[in-house]
Amino acid sequence: MEPVERVVSQLHESLEHLKERLLVMGGVAEERVRTVIQALVDREVAQVETIRTGDEPLNELHMEIDDRCFKMLALHQPMAVDLRGIVGAVKINTDLERVGDLAVNIAEATQRYLLHPPVKELIDIPRMAALAQAMLRDALDAYVRRDIELARHVLNEDDTLDALKTQVFRELLTYMLQDPRTIEPALDLILISRHLERIGDHATNIAEDVIFMVSAQDVRHHAGERD
Amino acid sequence: MEPVERVVSQLHESLEHLKERLLVMGGVAEERVRTVIQALVDREVAQVETIRTGDEPLNELHMEIDDRCFKMLALHQPMAVDLRGIVGAVKINTDLERVGDLAVNIAEATQRYLLHPPVKELIDIPRMAALAQAMLRDALDAYVRRDIELARHVLNEDDTLDALKTQVFRELLTYMLQDPRTIEPALDLILISRHLERIGDHATNIAEDVIFMVSAQDVRHHAGERD
Repeated sequence: MEPVERVVSQLHESLEHLKERLLVMGGVAEERVRTVIQALVDREVAQVETIRTGDEPLNELHMEIDDRCFKMLALHQPMAVDLRGIVGAVKINTDLERVGDLAVNIAEATQRYLLHPPVKELIDIPRMAALAQAMLRDALDAYVRRDIELARHVLNEDDTLDALKTQVFRELLTYMLQDPRTIEPALDLILISRHLERIGDHATNIAEDVIFMVSAQDVRHHAGERD
Repeated sequence: MEPVERVVSQLHESLEHLKERLLVMGGVAEERVRTVIQALVDREVAQVETIRTGDEPLNELHMEIDDRCFKMLALHQPMAVDLRGIVGAVKINTDLERVGDLAVNIAEATQRYLLHPPVKELIDIPRMAALAQAMLRDALDAYVRRDIELARHVLNEDDTLDALKTQVFRELLTYMLQDPRTIEPALDLILISRHLERIGDHATNIAEDVIFMVSAQDVRHHAGERD
């Protein structure tokens, strides 16, 4: 292999490994959201505590991936689509770390919520969580496959998540107006629904980055430089 | 001038210009927060609407700065402290754009709030806004001057902002419990205080990026390569 070819091949190997690590991180973030919402539904106080205090593995992945991106930028000095892919990874990495922070915020609100009797059966909040998780998964798949259609699908799903959030808010408001004893726990459910909406916002950010990456490739006439 | 020197000098010129543009963007973002909170206090419905619909200039700055960073990475292939400075700018740019989005969110909550009679005189919310703005300004100054002490000061200020948010929440809760007619408007004030807290979080993100930029320089033994 010629030296130049070897360098190019090393870069593409590093890019593949970067994608894998982002998928691992996305999986950890998604699992944390799934676990804390399940613990909310099952009123499993101990499980909530493991999420509230268990952000360290995600923070370590965040630092590892950030470091990996910097090294790739410095070592390979990538151009165009590779450059956008790596800078995109820096942004996505930040979004995933924030999802982990939001899982902690949900755990904190859940701990307060579980001090009170249940306000109502939880239906829309688990639905919001499932949707936010799916958006996150799809956004990462869109990044890995540079799939602009899937990224657009994530943007559309955000409207559904927004509508669910509004529905949760309106329903809880009626409980609060009818019975002041529900005000405190209902406020925490409203906060939890907002945290889930923000997880959807992070999936949306990732999807927008994917669209920028792919469409910049067309608009700026770099198409065909790779792939 | 030797060719290599000319390239280095062009990079440093671009870096200075990048800093200037980030400061302009920070100024616009901060002004939007200031204006919407003043409009909330003065109950100036028309002014709130200008903020709700006026996010375009900030979005344009966001795209311009993102584009500028990509061109600098591709053209100059910077190393170490310059590389971290440019990737840091990509992140800071994202944070500032989100601050603009949060000003829109505050405007939306304010519009709903102003449909009701005032719940109370607003004291802590303008105080939160002033603090969040100061944090944003300091975080950007810390970036421009690579001032790790100022960045640490921003992190400390975040605790004060958090304490104010908790105080706002507790006080509004007592209003809601005493008089159900205040529930809806008080909820919007709580949301506004959370949006201000998130603006503080973005300032904190920027400060953390500055600390990473500067301390990586020490830890990774690149000190003295520039400055």
